Amino acid sequence: MEVVFPQAKELRSILSAATAFLSEGTFKAKNDGIFLASLDSANVAVIIVDMYPNMFLDYKIDGEEEIFTVNLEDLKKILSKAKTKEQISWKTDKKKNKFILSIKGKSTRSFTLPLIETEGNVLDIPSLDLRIKLEMDAKAFSEIVSSAKVIADELKITTDPDKNTISFIAEGELKDMRIDLTSQDEGVLSMEVPEKVTVRYSVDYLYKITKVATISDTVMIKFDQDKPIWLDYRSLDKFRFGFVLAPRE
Amino acid sequence: MEVVFPQAKELRSILSAATAFLSEGTFKAKNDGIFLASLDSANVAVIIVDMYPNMFLDYKIDGEEEIFTVNLEDLKKILSKAKTKEQISWKTDKKKNKFILSIKGKSTRSFTLPLIETEGNVLDIPSLDLRIKLEMDAKAFSEIVSSAKVIADELKITTDPDKNTISFIAEGELKDMRIDLTSQDEGVLSMEVPEKVTVRYSVDYLYKITKVATISDTVMIKFDQDKPIWLDYRSLDKFRFGFVLAPRE
Amino acid sequence: MEVVFPQAKELRSILSAATAFLSEGTFKAKNDGIFLASLDSANVAVIIVDMYPNMFLDYKIDGEEEIFTVNLEDLKKILSKAKTKEQISWKTDKKKNKFILSIKGKSTRSFTLPLIETEGNVLDIPSLDLRIKLEMDAKAFSEIVSSAKVIADELKITTDPDKNTISFIAEGELKDMRIDLTSQDEGVLSMEVPEKVTVRYSVDYLYKITKVATISDTVMIKFDQDKPIWLDYRSLDKFRFGFVLAPRE
Repeated sequence: MEVVFPQAKELRSILSAATAFLSEGTFKAKNDGIFLASLDSANVAVIIVDMYPNMFLDYKIDGEEEIFTVNLEDLKKILSKAKTKEQISWKTDKKKNKFILSIKGKSTRSFTLPLIETEGNVLDIPSLDLRIKLEMDAKAFSEIVSSAKVIADELKITTDPDKNTISFIAEGELKDMRIDLTSQDEGVLSMEVPEKVTVRYSVDYLYKITKVATISDTVMIKFDQDKPIWLDYRSLDKFRFGFVLAPRE
Repeated sequence: MEVVFPQAKELRSILSAATAFLSEGTFKAKNDGIFLASLDSANVAVIIVDMYPNMFLDYKIDGEEEIFTVNLEDLKKILSKAKTKEQISWKTDKKKNKFILSIKGKSTRSFTLPLIETEGNVLDIPSLDLRIKLEMDAKAFSEIVSSAKVIADELKITTDPDKNTISFIAEGELKDMRIDLTSQDEGVLSMEVPEKVTVRYSVDYLYKITKVATISDTVMIKFDQDKPIWLDYRSLDKFRFGFVLAPRE
Repeated sequence: MEVVFPQAKELRSILSAATAFLSEGTFKAKNDGIFLASLDSANVAVIIVDMYPNMFLDYKIDGEEEIFTVNLEDLKKILSKAKTKEQISWKTDKKKNKFILSIKGKSTRSFTLPLIETEGNVLDIPSLDLRIKLEMDAKAFSEIVSSAKVIADELKITTDPDKNTISFIAEGELKDMRIDLTSQDEGVLSMEVPEKVTVRYSVDYLYKITKVATISDTVMIKFDQDKPIWLDYRSLDKFRFGFVLAPRE
């Protein structure tokens, strides 16, 4: 594999978000993109990274499919040394068992990391039928989660199909917080509320993801009764950062 | 009570300053404003908050006078989630014993806090005859205190009515700092020095207040022999943040 | 001695860099400038500060030569209270054994520090014949060191006179980093590579110096086989901040 990212910015955001949940990353490189999908270390959430060929300046894969695992912490540390607009290249050398990352700025800095032997694989992403859909401003969603965190460690979401509202509720001892969203709200892009549901998710996890997912301006949120919540941060034909979090009992 | 602040900015600054010294706040809401005056937890300083009806977009008090106590830490945390220009409303529900704070931005976030039962009351603000008066740039005063903190834990202030100067002095072992202010100094707006006095105050307290009191551009400073120092940060017809600190022996 | 710096900015940067390595500073003031040259507390590096008369607004030395020692930590703390464009004056009072620093802004703040009695002297700067010379963008050099730090605690530098390249190499267990600089690189201003050498220096020391040395846009780097590396940050006729680091065995 030998691929070139035109600038460090997006890659850095994506890997920084993934590294908050994973220490190693197993990527599958194919003709239609480079993919990662993995359970986080606590086995509570699934992290999904899709990088499509449009995201790259140069894109060359050896054979039909190439799977490789690298240490994400190392990758993140190295990328933190790249400036936003510097070009990044990734190269695997399967014979020498090496992963080579180069940063092209005023000078070219080349870093070599070992490819990790691992049983890790790229998860088949579960096919989930989540009927409640909400596309909204990513910062507005981040504010909701961050406000909830002040009050409780659990975020309750209820929907009302009659009024077409989605309510975010945090209930602490004596204190509580409530936000009712309708499709008229400024931060809301689109909303589908076909069913009445009540679900609960960990605030800490959602908080962690909203803090690191500074990848796109909007987030697509999907959830359903007794099912996970799925967050998608994406730039349509370039990349996707997905996050799937199991519900609380 | 139901009142609306046109924007979070000033309220946030005022409460942030108050919370540095108080964990709970007892407010008295009347037709001419909402007032807090309380000894700090160390019983060394008095914190005064006056918010006049001009500060509000809507202002409605139940009856002649309403006294309520809320946890200031909670209030501060919630307000930290509001953006500078978002509208804030406060509402008391005496029957349910609740305090409701709403933030109106892209969506409306409502927070409910318990009203605290307390013996706390609003102090009658002592009437102090402080003859030395100095109105100056708040940042310039902050620099004086911050410079003194490098040298000592006590700020000595001496005045000389003949030369019309106020001197700020910090004396450490071997090291010292001295600043002589006259009415000609750029940071000084007005100065009244009718008497020769020498007073001493805790640098730590003054430092703490100058760090948090980013409420107004100027500060009115008053003090006198063997008497407290009184700092007033205000926007004339809107609000006042006062701070009264006892002298060192 | 009585000298005036037109603004705090440069002095603050220089002293902040020196204080990272020295707790006390012994200065020699002469007609052609004020000089400091001292081994760092770990006896591994030499710190050099030259401040030429052009750096000052007023410059007056008592006698031919005046040597004085002050606590650099105190000096740095006091200067941190000065704003970038405030005027700074230094004055020694040998009779009272005092060093007086004044900051002239909206008001004048005067600080008095003791002159320290010390056997400390100004080192004679070693005359070193270092044949490899590289003048480059200071930020680009900082990036090289900072990238190396991710990988290892030692920076290896090799030169190739045939290809006219200087290579910076960090070798960790399994991981490594490599940067090849030629005179064509954007960050390189000039390069002299007459010999083939391989030298090693502590990354931590170089990292520390590149973090604090935000004094000039470019850095002159000199080194040679089995010899120290010498970094010079300078503004030609005003000042120089030099740093000489012994090689690793």
